[in-house]
Amino acid sequence: MNLSPDMHHLGRAARDGAEALRAASAEQRTAAIRAMATHLRADSSSILAANASDLAAATQHHDRLRLDAERVEAIAAGVEAVAGLPDPVGAEIARWQRPNGLDIARVRTPIGVIGMIYEARPNVTADAAAICVRSGNAVILRPGSDCFASSRAIHSALVRGLAEAGLPPATVQIVPTADRALVGDLLAGLDGTLDLLIPRGGRSLVERIQAEARVPVLGHLEGVCHTYVHHAADPVMAAAIVHNAKLRRVSVCGSTETLLIDRAALPMLPAIAEALEGCELRGDAEAAAVVPMRLATEDDWRTEYLAPILSIRTVSDWHEAASHIARYGTGHTEAIVTEDRAVAEAFLDTVDSAIVLWNASTQYADGGEFGFGAEIGIATGKLHARGPVGPEQLTSFKYVVRGAGQVRP
Amino acid sequence: MNLSPDMHHLGRAARDGAEALRAASAEQRTAAIRAMATHLRADSSSILAANASDLAAATQHHDRLRLDAERVEAIAAGVEAVAGLPDPVGAEIARWQRPNGLDIARVRTPIGVIGMIYEARPNVTADAAAICVRSGNAVILRPGSDCFASSRAIHSALVRGLAEAGLPPATVQIVPTADRALVGDLLAGLDGTLDLLIPRGGRSLVERIQAEARVPVLGHLEGVCHTYVHHAADPVMAAAIVHNAKLRRVSVCGSTETLLIDRAALPMLPAIAEALEGCELRGDAEAAAVVPMRLATEDDWRTEYLAPILSIRTVSDWHEAASHIARYGTGHTEAIVTEDRAVAEAFLDTVDSAIVLWNASTQYADGGEFGFGAEIGIATGKLHARGPVGPEQLTSFKYVVRGAGQVRP
Repeated sequence: MNLSPDMHHLGRAARDGAEALRAASAEQRTAAIRAMATHLRADSSSILAANASDLAAATQHHDRLRLDAERVEAIAAGVEAVAGLPDPVGAEIARWQRPNGLDIARVRTPIGVIGMIYEARPNVTADAAAICVRSGNAVILRPGSDCFASSRAIHSALVRGLAEAGLPPATVQIVPTADRALVGDLLAGLDGTLDLLIPRGGRSLVERIQAEARVPVLGHLEGVCHTYVHHAADPVMAAAIVHNAKLRRVSVCGSTETLLIDRAALPMLPAIAEALEGCELRGDAEAAAVVPMRLATEDDWRTEYLAPILSIRTVSDWHEAASHIARYGTGHTEAIVTEDRAVAEAFLDTVDSAIVLWNASTQYADGGEFGFGAEIGIATGKLHARGPVGPEQLTSFKYVVRGAGQVRP
Repeated sequence: MNLSPDMHHLGRAARDGAEALRAASAEQRTAAIRAMATHLRADSSSILAANASDLAAATQHHDRLRLDAERVEAIAAGVEAVAGLPDPVGAEIARWQRPNGLDIARVRTPIGVIGMIYEARPNVTADAAAICVRSGNAVILRPGSDCFASSRAIHSALVRGLAEAGLPPATVQIVPTADRALVGDLLAGLDGTLDLLIPRGGRSLVERIQAEARVPVLGHLEGVCHTYVHHAADPVMAAAIVHNAKLRRVSVCGSTETLLIDRAALPMLPAIAEALEGCELRGDAEAAAVVPMRLATEDDWRTEYLAPILSIRTVSDWHEAASHIARYGTGHTEAIVTEDRAVAEAFLDTVDSAIVLWNASTQYADGGEFGFGAEIGIATGKLHARGPVGPEQLTSFKYVVRGAGQVRP
């Protein structure tokens, strides 16, 4: 492989950085994260200046891209919160004795070197760095070209924080340029340096990375999330949950995109529609016969709107709801609203998504809401980590076996 | 992608098989595995006839390939043992309450469809099928051409067992021919059907699969395992452990290939060499000055002999031992022999292999010895599963959230 000399150096340095982080104490990692937050605050004006240049060059995504003093403070506070999370490295997950006296412990270890590839959101630079340092992993950041200057300014603050805590800059690195060829180097694994790639971005970015990567990928696919209103739902609860699941924030991956509703529950639809005032509805013929709305097309069932639009499909029962989810869902988050416990449990058991909820809003799909403290995304694959990915999910483990001279018969 | 029609059908059927297995009860999966064992025993003579034709065609690996009545019985008994293991599907790994009253459970789920690609060992056909059924996963088997007839005969017995328990044959499938092009179809993921590939075989097979696969791979790399004799080792224990670690069975992946010995422990080397009678020794100059032996080359430090050959390297201290392991090891299994607890703990903490042992033989690297009941290999990667891979390691999980109408503020 023809790796550019810059990237070759980056990869080798990351290995050393990972070694340093793994050898550091939990206290040292905590001190480093706190110092990262301090330097983010101190660098606020240079970060905002860099952001202004990104904004001037950007043709889209201004909302995700724009920083202001308040947002920089929020980024620093987020980093500080990660400093307060328990350090997972070395934690014993399990420990047992074998009849021959061997004592076996399963102990958390860092994964090694993680590559983050993301778009348009400069805050990911700080979030990812903090979570990686907490979990003892070195990270190589590849921000999108649209947020490159902002990310570089944030990175520069982070590295000074690391230095203050005695950690080498190689623990958190950023690619030298936004050149797309460097993404190819990351996908190829940087000469065996990268242990894991985490893409954060739109479907096309994630799919390209999953298709081309030669290293494991922790994918965060889009969330085509469903809320299913069963005929035995409490009508008031159903309207409240659908309203929150769709409209609390339309731009998050856990927002509901499709309402599935029992034919026998269609009388609840007018109240639900009223609760959704201001939201465009696109339904099948049966729904549209109850509440006037545009007819949904096949495309609607597959679309993550991230906008005040809701598709509505009428189903016969929970089996049909589960089949629709299996066919059109992205394995992210789905909810059922019902007072019937048996139907709820059958739905929770059958639907194979990262998060399944009963009588609660899909907008709870969030590491913070789960008590994980911080997350860098919701993994929609089934391997290694699934659901919210926080520091604990970014660890591996090893078996530590303590004996007294045992030999195997 | 140009998938052959046969393989396209196989992939679609596997999805249905995975659905059926996931929907089945634990009792049904147990009954199926027991029936698989019964039919293996009943088909012993046709399995042996098929094996004879494999042997007649084979030019190598006769020892791994050859079955006899006793080995078929051992395969059936191994399958039966898996029937006795706890069913992992649906098991609650963790459960907690959030301050807002949400009840969150982390529950084991099957992964889906697993592809097994293996060489020369017909018993993997039955082992893999049993472990996959136990963990609720459909499996597609691709045996090497050298054991294809034996594997097909074993598969035919397994499928009749599945049918007896009411499970469709699509839960355990075998590729139609040993054509190498079909391996390419598996590596490409069978049109999105495969969730995980598990290669079992030599380095070249595993490396090819890791390099070319478009789906996640659970790699079982070779074991270049080390035993490190610290100067504070008990000399008698050191000789007993090194003897067992090297010679108990030389063909298993957990056998020690390199002895690392402290310079200050070299006086123990003659007794260790005596215990290793019949084993070829290849050492560095310092070791060869104590016990006459052939000089080791750089290649020796990287070689998995799987034979009665041991390389020996002299080190200054445990740091140098750990550095040697980091450089030449495969992340499989390493042991330290010492009476010094502080050094032992430092070594266990520093060495980043799937299994690290103190005062015990590396030949304990085995799922059965860990209490997992059965394994289909020792994973040497750090993602998803590491170390012995049994039914529990072949599961994913999902979050089941039970609420009372909560909406997110």
